[in-house]
Amino acid sequence: MNKVILLDKRPLGKPLLSDFKFDVEEVPVPGEGQLLLKTLYVSVDPYLRGRMNDNRSYIPPFQLTKPIQSGIIAEVVSSNRTDFKSGDFVSGILEWKEYQLSEGKGITRVDDIAGNLSKYLGILGMTGLTAYCGLTEIGVPKAGETIVVSGAAGAVGSVVGQIGKILGCRVVGITGTDEKVQLLKTKFKFDQAVNYKTEENLKDAIGNACPLGVDVYFDNVGGDISYAVLENLNKYARIPLCGTISLYNEVKPPSGPRIQPLLLVKSSLMRGFIISDFSDKFPQAIRQLMNWLNEGKLTFSETIVDGFDNIPQTFLDLFEGKNEGKMIVKI
Amino acid sequence: MNKVILLDKRPLGKPLLSDFKFDVEEVPVPGEGQLLLKTLYVSVDPYLRGRMNDNRSYIPPFQLTKPIQSGIIAEVVSSNRTDFKSGDFVSGILEWKEYQLSEGKGITRVDDIAGNLSKYLGILGMTGLTAYCGLTEIGVPKAGETIVVSGAAGAVGSVVGQIGKILGCRVVGITGTDEKVQLLKTKFKFDQAVNYKTEENLKDAIGNACPLGVDVYFDNVGGDISYAVLENLNKYARIPLCGTISLYNEVKPPSGPRIQPLLLVKSSLMRGFIISDFSDKFPQAIRQLMNWLNEGKLTFSETIVDGFDNIPQTFLDLFEGKNEGKMIVKI
Repeated sequence: MNKVILLDKRPLGKPLLSDFKFDVEEVPVPGEGQLLLKTLYVSVDPYLRGRMNDNRSYIPPFQLTKPIQSGIIAEVVSSNRTDFKSGDFVSGILEWKEYQLSEGKGITRVDDIAGNLSKYLGILGMTGLTAYCGLTEIGVPKAGETIVVSGAAGAVGSVVGQIGKILGCRVVGITGTDEKVQLLKTKFKFDQAVNYKTEENLKDAIGNACPLGVDVYFDNVGGDISYAVLENLNKYARIPLCGTISLYNEVKPPSGPRIQPLLLVKSSLMRGFIISDFSDKFPQAIRQLMNWLNEGKLTFSETIVDGFDNIPQTFLDLFEGKNEGKMIVKI
Repeated sequence: MNKVILLDKRPLGKPLLSDFKFDVEEVPVPGEGQLLLKTLYVSVDPYLRGRMNDNRSYIPPFQLTKPIQSGIIAEVVSSNRTDFKSGDFVSGILEWKEYQLSEGKGITRVDDIAGNLSKYLGILGMTGLTAYCGLTEIGVPKAGETIVVSGAAGAVGSVVGQIGKILGCRVVGITGTDEKVQLLKTKFKFDQAVNYKTEENLKDAIGNACPLGVDVYFDNVGGDISYAVLENLNKYARIPLCGTISLYNEVKPPSGPRIQPLLLVKSSLMRGFIISDFSDKFPQAIRQLMNWLNEGKLTFSETIVDGFDNIPQTFLDLFEGKNEGKMIVKI
């Protein structure tokens, strides 16, 4: 039998387990030109929350009663195609199913070199590319400048900080527990880290961690944390706007202090992006990330949860900050 | 005698006449290397409001009990210098005084070709440069794209719209009276104009005026008007952030719906600027503006008020939208 996870209801605010529905179907049989894929690793990501709304956004919304999709690593278990053979590992945006058919469109073969396939969902996949392209194409940091990253212990944030250090910058992370503060300073070599949940005056705490001001702010969260960073901008600062996780579960358009006066007086640039905006940079970016990884200059964290049945709960846990680095479900 | 206008109190919220103080001093006598300047035209501009606060901003705040400064056209009435002679006209950031001394620093000679010196404060001065550089360097409009301008009947906005038309774009202005709506469509050749004070649903009104969405938003106002424009952005939109006049008189940091989610899903760029960011582009920009002016492709409006004593009230009138185009006091 083949388990499937469908979107049953559109979440209102914070998603609930009851917004998802498990279904069971026959394991499909590949026809002419088809592959049968067996899911090995499922990526759960904050941006999926946006696809659960019935809004026009940068990608079409999920359909009710249809399977959810996300980044997945799968094994080809049988192939009626010449371009993939049984035993190959592939990466792509696939459905939350134990088994599924594919005609090869939108999937890429990945090598199981280090026996560590999940990295193709993280450091060598969407999150690594997001960190690299957002930071280098929009942030354009120069050696000696100060970079602040929010969601710093997350999959993207932890890579942004490390790339910042490789490029010779001072790097300050914002995160939500003291354990993550330590992790950022030890494992990921951030210069400073700030726990936004325990600081009484976040603006001043960031100011103290950035004595020369903020030149690049890699924004993963939006909201009040970001306002406190923007109050510390230097002139000509650059703000790659990667995500607004603090706002994804808001029912009404969230309000807060307006940021235009801060951007205006500092002649600063903010630019929203989705990783596909930079698809022409991917080959070069992957090569660079792989080199840094092989040279030991880059490390990564994964939180790997076991079991297909745990996919929805693991997704919900993202919004509680329960992940350290990339959140992945191993099937 | 020589009248002078000082900043007497820092305005709290909307400025009042009582925040200014008139003083009288002797007309100064130029010493070695000095010029005596007689003020002819005084520019009053929204950005001066920012300098009245005791905040770190892009330019130092005005000092209490000292003269206010702004863009001024003056005549050299006597000269102890070789680089300027009596009868020359000059432009510069000067003090609100009937007469003042100068050592030639920061002033530029201007020609009284058309007997219309005030244009060096507007279309061929700071406002023309702001419109040209903000639109072409940040907005980077392509022919066929849609440009929205707020504060459209103001000194900067009316030039932005005309440059947009010259560059082959659809141009939509936002303004605050029906008379200005007509002015934008007739004198300045905007394709459409929206009166934000009479529209019940500004988002939809802008959407209707921009059937192909908004590619460039030249933001002079900030606040709710801007949010309504941002709700109509196309993917990869560019937003030159030139001013936030709707927020200048706020006492506390103004709040409103957060804009990051809108910038994120549309991969859009917002960049604050002050005209000096583009000073290397000025010679080329002035040449281009002068050519368009001579070719009859560009026109401009001025609201000229008579009398030195009226400078403070004329400045206050900016925040009531009493100007059409550049607001100037003729001495």
